[in-house]
Amino acid sequence: MLPFLKERYGNPSSIHRQGRVTRKAINKARKQIAFLINADPAEILITSGGTESNNTALNGITSKFQSGQIITTSIEHDAVLEPCKKLSSKGFHVDYLPVDKFGMISISDLEDIISEKTRLVSVMFGNNEVGTIQPIEKIAKICHEKQVIFHTDAVQAIGKIPVDVKELDVDLLSISSHKLYGPKGIGALYIKDGVKIDPMILGGGQEFRLRSGTENVANIVGFGQACEIAQNHLIENLSLIKKLQSQLVKKVLSEIPEVTFNGHLESRLDNNAHFTFLGVNGEDLIIKLDEYGIAASTGSACSVNTQKASHVLESMGFSLEQITGSLRLTVGIFNNENEINETVKILKKIVEELRAVSPFKEKYSF
Amino acid sequence: MLPFLKERYGNPSSIHRQGRVTRKAINKARKQIAFLINADPAEILITSGGTESNNTALNGITSKFQSGQIITTSIEHDAVLEPCKKLSSKGFHVDYLPVDKFGMISISDLEDIISEKTRLVSVMFGNNEVGTIQPIEKIAKICHEKQVIFHTDAVQAIGKIPVDVKELDVDLLSISSHKLYGPKGIGALYIKDGVKIDPMILGGGQEFRLRSGTENVANIVGFGQACEIAQNHLIENLSLIKKLQSQLVKKVLSEIPEVTFNGHLESRLDNNAHFTFLGVNGEDLIIKLDEYGIAASTGSACSVNTQKASHVLESMGFSLEQITGSLRLTVGIFNNENEINETVKILKKIVEELRAVSPFKEKYSF
Repeated sequence: MLPFLKERYGNPSSIHRQGRVTRKAINKARKQIAFLINADPAEILITSGGTESNNTALNGITSKFQSGQIITTSIEHDAVLEPCKKLSSKGFHVDYLPVDKFGMISISDLEDIISEKTRLVSVMFGNNEVGTIQPIEKIAKICHEKQVIFHTDAVQAIGKIPVDVKELDVDLLSISSHKLYGPKGIGALYIKDGVKIDPMILGGGQEFRLRSGTENVANIVGFGQACEIAQNHLIENLSLIKKLQSQLVKKVLSEIPEVTFNGHLESRLDNNAHFTFLGVNGEDLIIKLDEYGIAASTGSACSVNTQKASHVLESMGFSLEQITGSLRLTVGIFNNENEINETVKILKKIVEELRAVSPFKEKYSF
Repeated sequence: MLPFLKERYGNPSSIHRQGRVTRKAINKARKQIAFLINADPAEILITSGGTESNNTALNGITSKFQSGQIITTSIEHDAVLEPCKKLSSKGFHVDYLPVDKFGMISISDLEDIISEKTRLVSVMFGNNEVGTIQPIEKIAKICHEKQVIFHTDAVQAIGKIPVDVKELDVDLLSISSHKLYGPKGIGALYIKDGVKIDPMILGGGQEFRLRSGTENVANIVGFGQACEIAQNHLIENLSLIKKLQSQLVKKVLSEIPEVTFNGHLESRLDNNAHFTFLGVNGEDLIIKLDEYGIAASTGSACSVNTQKASHVLESMGFSLEQITGSLRLTVGIFNNENEINETVKILKKIVEELRAVSPFKEKYSF
């Protein structure tokens, strides 16, 4: 990225040499992004991130209609739920597929509800809070039998598990750079060849006239490179992450009493480990863990601004007490076994301390 | 920016230390951006760039209406014209104020046309092709007498000339980071306290719930720093640019025959020098200049994708021949007198060469 923040400052739309240099860099990055998901470079629309990709998909498909049905799930990220709410206020009918206690939708629910009025189905790939992976290929098949466009928010999945858009046969797929170790503020929307969307941001006609604005060259270059690195190391990273996560889950469940491991047991993102520590407040856990230099989250960082209880856990049927006691620990490729052991040791100590003063102390026999 | 591309990778919405570090960095940058235009930090909405800022302003103000009048000018950037075209197709009536041969609107045209149905007036600060600066303070006054919201696309002006939003009394003002030597892919929309806009990009509720998506921390930090540097050096930069531009204009006009200097003579951006070399094709000039390492433009880099004749020059009454022979040379703070002299020498040589084979050779006595 560095040369593009310094001497290679040309506007990619300029005819001169400085412009051609940055144009070429964008072309290369577009290929790197495309190859990671087995897409054609012309199918990659570069955006300012996963949120913009989701908004572009939802608005870009529905804008040619005044009304109709949109099908999504009750556990989507706010970057899908909020645009859906807006579309609902504009005259669309939005159906939210429920999930079971593992965070999984039911294919027959989708089959029952999809109709000739369905404009778009949007189901997330892997959940950002509990990691559950939905049956994307099956959903795509059902949608296409009814000639319905299918979008998936794959922000949490891309770069972490192998994803092949041709095999899955999705129409639209959202990607975020910083979720695969690339820079923030950049992302992409895969748009299958032949699928037509209306642009949201209008102007000079950059990005195939679908997303105007001078290109964020340095971040695009970084995003492309991150995709290439993710692709080259996908298998080894996956096996490392799987090993670390198994170790984490096993140790937490065996060493700390009254704890549940949440999300689906098989169909899940391997970097995600979501627990409920009964009788403890998840936010207190985060603050205490932070004192030891361990960065954790209760749910989605993106929902901190809204200060509301996790809609994902609510949908999974969790009680308020269970939601309150929940903690997400995500392992990454820069973690190691020692850090996992250390984290569990600290977590155990903190949970004990917090439970000693918990109002639920009597309810359980901590 | 570098630490935020490396070790300070926290999501600013996270509660943990890594998150608080980046949140603090954004807060600092927001102040730096605000101070450059004498705004309050809470009035600064950070976006992915000038184009998104313009789109947000136009859509954000009009979205609560179904119809009404929008007033803009015929020489706006496509990032204003294209959203206006879209709004027009949705039921709004858009009036485009004409300009004189210097690229200047007439205040009385605005007074004649503004009405109780006007939802928004959007007039650019300084033109990106010919540099003409519009009478922003007067426009704001007229708008506010009629209780109409006034937006200005100040992408070309901010960081180059002193701009005080309180003095000008504008309601909305668009800024682009890379136009003031900051990184690409980041910008801001000034929204005067009390002015309500609807968000375009929905999701986790970042940026006061007006622009969702994980913040582009590194670019925000770079943008903020660029604003502070621009503010600290505004007067000296302005005087350097003015000197270099005067030298450039004087030398071009005295050394090359049959050339006009375009745009307004007094009310203009001092970094911009726009010429018409009769009998020459501006694109040929750019290609030849490029061979000597001189980066020039015919009009707006952003309009290259659309391949159309400059709507700005057309509005100023230029003939197709004049538009074809036009060239924009922009001086920057990293230029010096020698470069100006060298550029004029090369430009003179190229113009002579091109005119020797020009089909207009007979028409003029080159």
